[in-house]
Amino acid sequence: MTSLPFIARNENIARYEKGQVAILDRRVYPFKTSFVRCRTVEDVARAIENMVTQSYGPALAASYGMAQAARQSAKSSGEKIFSDLEKACARLIATRPTNNLIRLKVEHLLDAGKLAINRGEDVEQALLEEIELDLAHGEERSTALGTYAASLIQDGDTILTHCWPDSSIVYTAMVALNQGKKLKAYCDETRPYLQGARLTADALGEMGVDTTVITDGMPAALMSRGMIDSFFAGSDRVTMSGHVVNKIGTLQVAISAHTFGVPFYAFIYGPDQDALTPDDVVIEERDPNEVLFCLGKRTATTRAKGYYPAFDITPPKYVSALVTDRGIFSPYSASDYYSI
Amino acid sequence: MTSLPFIARNENIARYEKGQVAILDRRVYPFKTSFVRCRTVEDVARAIENMVTQSYGPALAASYGMAQAARQSAKSSGEKIFSDLEKACARLIATRPTNNLIRLKVEHLLDAGKLAINRGEDVEQALLEEIELDLAHGEERSTALGTYAASLIQDGDTILTHCWPDSSIVYTAMVALNQGKKLKAYCDETRPYLQGARLTADALGEMGVDTTVITDGMPAALMSRGMIDSFFAGSDRVTMSGHVVNKIGTLQVAISAHTFGVPFYAFIYGPDQDALTPDDVVIEERDPNEVLFCLGKRTATTRAKGYYPAFDITPPKYVSALVTDRGIFSPYSASDYYSI
Repeated sequence: MTSLPFIARNENIARYEKGQVAILDRRVYPFKTSFVRCRTVEDVARAIENMVTQSYGPALAASYGMAQAARQSAKSSGEKIFSDLEKACARLIATRPTNNLIRLKVEHLLDAGKLAINRGEDVEQALLEEIELDLAHGEERSTALGTYAASLIQDGDTILTHCWPDSSIVYTAMVALNQGKKLKAYCDETRPYLQGARLTADALGEMGVDTTVITDGMPAALMSRGMIDSFFAGSDRVTMSGHVVNKIGTLQVAISAHTFGVPFYAFIYGPDQDALTPDDVVIEERDPNEVLFCLGKRTATTRAKGYYPAFDITPPKYVSALVTDRGIFSPYSASDYYSI
Repeated sequence: MTSLPFIARNENIARYEKGQVAILDRRVYPFKTSFVRCRTVEDVARAIENMVTQSYGPALAASYGMAQAARQSAKSSGEKIFSDLEKACARLIATRPTNNLIRLKVEHLLDAGKLAINRGEDVEQALLEEIELDLAHGEERSTALGTYAASLIQDGDTILTHCWPDSSIVYTAMVALNQGKKLKAYCDETRPYLQGARLTADALGEMGVDTTVITDGMPAALMSRGMIDSFFAGSDRVTMSGHVVNKIGTLQVAISAHTFGVPFYAFIYGPDQDALTPDDVVIEERDPNEVLFCLGKRTATTRAKGYYPAFDITPPKYVSALVTDRGIFSPYSASDYYSI
């Protein structure tokens, strides 16, 4: 049986240790396995902003940040605890605007905190229990999503990935491998952070998938040669209109896949009911300098500027299916996710 | 008046100095301006194989390699000189198979060498004069190509580039700027060698173009936002069927351009009459490790392999026009180039 790779185990994504949040530094993994230790909510927020963790990682780190806030106000009045939790909640949400998972998690914990305060319970403890419940629930959902996704993979298939779709791709590969399917993967490197070359390729390689890294310019060429059976990517957000908002680069691979008849499957734990169309999603623009460097080394001339919109929007016509924990949906009926 | 940037001046691409060929090391430019000195034809061949220079650079370096071979056999019989030139010719052609400019140049010099031998002339000198003539002719052709290309650019346009189209993009920008047109450029970085981020962006920046570097995953996203007016790329080879063989990555940008109604103009100094279709073109596969590193630093997990086909093939349906030194042609009538 194939098990979860190191990077996808909850305790390695982020840990809570007596009021400190330790976050695996995905900026340097797998070259170095080190954890950034955050003593305050502000530390956690900055770690998220600085890309210490990404994909689903920030949601877990931010959740622990809420427990941390509760611990630090523990000796205060109920009102003060709640107001500190509200502040932590706002600060954590403000870190990154495009993926709304942070917001969903910390707002839920704010509600849980309120309940604990009203009941006179230990708020930190209550939040940690809530996070544990959520992690257990998350494993169930990931297994469900992975099982649906694996049903789209045939024995001997070669899949293409973009960026680091976190638990989604890991559970997909785990279920497929445990069904006895042989699997090959091409991972595009995903500049500027190289999440594909470092994280996805590492996790799939660790699981025993025959894994090859390519540059971000290669997907269409491989598809034109018939080398790819399906393209899988995560989604930072899916709108109710079926638009997939994900790491920049997804759009042109999706268009290429459409051109060469390769299905594009977008992972998502449900579309966002608050985002009817892409107009409702803020596309984060990050520091332009980030595209002028690679792992800290300058890669571009000083005679040019950089530009780094972190996400792009793939319209539903280029999306073959949304693969979720509740089933496989057409992007044109994304709302069906909520009628199951 | 805007003049040629440093990297596009012939004497900086490759120099001939008393039997030595000095080649600008484009692997490290513009971070470092250094020349690789080649004492023998074998040195020149290895420098080309190791990507010291690329695009049109290898053709000039190889040409000087022929003069070098002539010099080294200078005291031999005519037959021996010719046989040494033949060997040099074969070695230099064998360096890189996809771009056939090396072959065209060195085979022409082999003929010129034969003539000089028959006439009892100094063969090295005869070849150097031939190279000088060719460089002067090249400037005329580049100016013509740049003038045709500039006619496709409107004042205020924003162009997108891929890789380093060498003199083609430089003359295009020079003519357009000297016509008083304002120009913006986005250059994709073009992994793994970063020719876009280092060479194209540097040359355009040096010429005063408002230049921005993006990662290879971004072109479609920018086009989807209406930020790009036209896409220009070089061609290592164009077949008579109108297929554009160029640095890998061209295909997916061309498909994206087609999708968003952005014209794709491919520079070429004439299609290859010996290549009727892509089947007649060898696509070079380079060392897979090259995609696992960036400027000498490991960028990918050791749990994955690399894969590096260096070129892809863009079918004529995604090519708006071939921009040449003899005019602007449809890829569907590439052969018209030879009827002018």
